[in-house]
Parts: sequence; structure tokens; C-alpha cells
Amino acid sequence: MRDALVAAAFRLFLERGYEQTTVDDIVALAGVGRRSFFRYFPSKEDVVFPDHERCLADMTAFLAASGTEHEPVRRVCDAARLVLLMYAENPSFSVQRYRLTKRVPGLRAYELSVVWRYERALADYLRGRFAGRPDGTLQADVIAAAVVAAHNNALRSWLRSDGQGEATATVDHALEYVQSAFGTAPTPTPTPVPTPTPTPYVDGRPEDVVVVVSRRGAPLWRVVQEIETTLGRS
Amino acid sequence: MRDALVAAAFRLFLERGYEQTTVDDIVALAGVGRRSFFRYFPSKEDVVFPDHERCLADMTAFLAASGTEHEPVRRVCDAARLVLLMYAENPSFSVQRYRLTKRVPGLRAYELSVVWRYERALADYLRGRFAGRPDGTLQADVIAAAVVAAHNNALRSWLRSDGQGEATATVDHALEYVQSAFGTAPTPTPTPVPTPTPTPYVDGRPEDVVVVVSRRGAPLWRVVQEIETTLGRS
Repeated sequence: MRDALVAAAFRLFLERGYEQTTVDDIVALAGVGRRSFFRYFPSKEDVVFPDHERCLADMTAFLAASGTEHEPVRRVCDAARLVLLMYAENPSFSVQRYRLTKRVPGLRAYELSVVWRYERALADYLRGRFAGRPDGTLQADVIAAAVVAAHNNALRSWLRSDGQGEATATVDHALEYVQSAFGTAPTPTPTPVPTPTPTPYVDGRPEDVVVVVSRRGAPLWRVVQEIETTLGRS
Repeated sequence: MRDALVAAAFRLFLERGYEQTTVDDIVALAGVGRRSFFRYFPSKEDVVFPDHERCLADMTAFLAASGTEHEPVRRVCDAARLVLLMYAENPSFSVQRYRLTKRVPGLRAYELSVVWRYERALADYLRGRFAGRPDGTLQADVIAAAVVAAHNNALRSWLRSDGQGEATATVDHALEYVQSAFGTAPTPTPTPVPTPTPTPYVDGRPEDVVVVVSRRGAPLWRVVQEIETTLGRS
């Protein structure tokens, strides 16, 4: 019945437009009563995003099941992947919904509120994990926002390609950018980097060794900047 | 007249509650007609956030006036500071509104849509600046989201302190975190860090010198991780 309501709603949204479709139209096409509709969906918006509540609950449970053995930034990236899986379960439905949402301002507002709830779930988890840090809540909020933005950038690019490309690879790549920015290892570590052994080279710089010398009190960004310049990546 | 409408609206919102106050109540207290209200504000929500449109226009103009001499991440941080200035212009009004917004779900939804517009303005600017990069749109979206999250974390902590603390210093500190994560220098460089001179110390580590030795091919995050560990900041 739930699936039938979603199917009827989307058929009407695409035929007549979202605003022009009433809940009465949807239940008439699905052959059920109004009360059945509202048993599954609090409002007309909710039938457009039928799986977000379940996905939010899954994400919250996934994060609650974390232990100290889980690196926190990687953990929130893995939590964000649950959202992608929900979209990738049914590509054609996800692409239809994406096109609909772009056209209807009310649905975009609804989507913003859903995105905000995912972001809060990630930030709350990180705040817990960073509780001992001086800037714990700041770092938690910033990293959660970065994870959501990276995930959504990749998700939208997949939706714009009509769900054709490799959704998982696109999202993995986007999340690796966040993980590298916040100083933790990207998820698939291809080969372990050997622990570097100090060598007596300082001048002379042999091909495969870079030596950075810095005052102990120098701010971290300055040290990073020097390394970037030395490695020719800036 | 505009200020009188805002003052009347807030007096009623605080006395009766937001939902219980109509536009008719507001214009009656301000002693003007309904048409005057709607000349200034498209809806009741807009009277709660009377300055965001102006601030968005200022931010867009500020970013449009940027040149290639402006480091892009620093530039979006400076753009975000315009929002803070708007809040800091009138601390008691900003604190009142913060309390009101927390209580009224409709206002929180409105605020989310405003925040999203600021984030889009920052991301659009960064997308332009990063146009040549392979992951330009991804980086633009992630950095814009991080800047907004850092700004809002600091802004909220200032609002929760009833506008007592140093808003500017709090926001500067938050934005420095984003700038350091994305590899650029924080805006106010307190004292120039002297260019380190290579010394023959590798073992032995004198008090004020840290030496990091790394393979040239090692990923940047790994190098940063090593430095953090060495400096005892991780």
C-alpha cells in the first residue's frame, strides 16, 4: 500500500505537476482512503521523500553503535554513505525525484530541512567523540558540514548523469577529499606508507626524501604551507 | 517606517508569540496600513530577518569585486564576516531573534533557506575561482559549507552568551580552523614566522626545532599526521 501510494503520487506529480496534485487525487488513483495516506505520510511532501526517516534512523543507529576503535571522521563518512545507498537502491525513482525537487520550491525547502537533520546527526556524533578537545564543537560542526557537502556534490553529479555513472566511486572520491583535509587517512588505504626513518640528509636532498625544518612553535598551517611548496603541490 | 514595523513585530512576537501575531496586529501597533508592511516585507517571516537581503547583496558585490590577487579561501572567509557584522551591529536585537527562532519551527526553516543562499553565494564564487581544477566544484562546495558551519558555530556561541563576548575574535578563530584545514594562511598573521634555516640536527632534536623526514611520494595527509603527532597536537 505504501509503495502504491508513492507510485500513484509520482505518476500524478509528473503528469500534472506537484502543486496541482492533491492528496485526494493520489488516494483516488491508488484506490485507498485518505486515512491510509496519512497513516504512512504526515504530509504531501513526505511522499516525495518516503525513505529519509528510515535512513535517518539507520544513520543514528550506525553512529550509536560506534566504538573508540572507529576513527571519527572516517565513521561519519561511512554514515553518509548510507544516504547514497538509499538513493542508489532505485536510480530511476531517485532521478525522477531530483528533477521534481529542482522545479518545486516547497520541495527544495523540505529537502534542506532533511539535509540539516543528517548534518546534525553527524555533528552530534562528532561532538561526542571530540568532547575532550578545546575546539571540539567547532571541529564537529565544520567536519559534519564538509562531509554532507561532499556527499551531496557527488550525489547530485550522479543524479544529473541520470544515475548512469558509478555512484559509489564518485562519493568515495568526494569523501576522500574531506578526509584528507581534516588530517585523517582516506578509507581505502592502497598500500601502507612505510614509517620514514630519519636520515642524515638535510642539504643535498636525494630524489625520494624531503626534509622540512621548522620552529617548534610555528603554526601548523605554516608548516603545511612549507611542505606543500616543497612538494610542489600548492 | 521600516524600523517601526520591525520594532512593533518583535514586541508582539515576544508578548504573544510568533504564531499568535498577525500582520494586521503588527500594522495596527505600528500605526500604518497593510500595504506599507508588504512594501517592505514579502511575508511575516521576512520581518524577523529584515537585513539578510541587504547582506546577501553586499556579500555578492564583495565577491564580484574580487581579483586574482585575493586568495580564494581567505576571500570567502572575509565574505562570511559580513554576516557577523550585520548581527553584531545590534546585539540585543540579534539575541532576541535567536531566542525566537529557536522556538518557532517555521522560522528555523526560513533561516535554513537563508543560510543555504549564503552558502551558494560562497560556493559560486569558489567554483569560478577553481574552474581550472579537476575537482573544482567539489572543493568549492565543501569549503563553502565548512566556512558557513564555522561562522555559524561561532555566531551561535556568541548569541548564546547574550552577545556579551567578543564576536569578531570568536569568528576569526573559527574561520582560522577552516583556513588551516584547506591549506591556506589565516587572515590576521600576528607576527611573520621567520623562514626556517636548515640545520644539521636530525637526531637529538633541540628544544625549538622539529625535523620531519618523509618520502617525496607520501600523501599529504600522512605528512600532516606525522607533523601533528610530532608537535603533540593530534
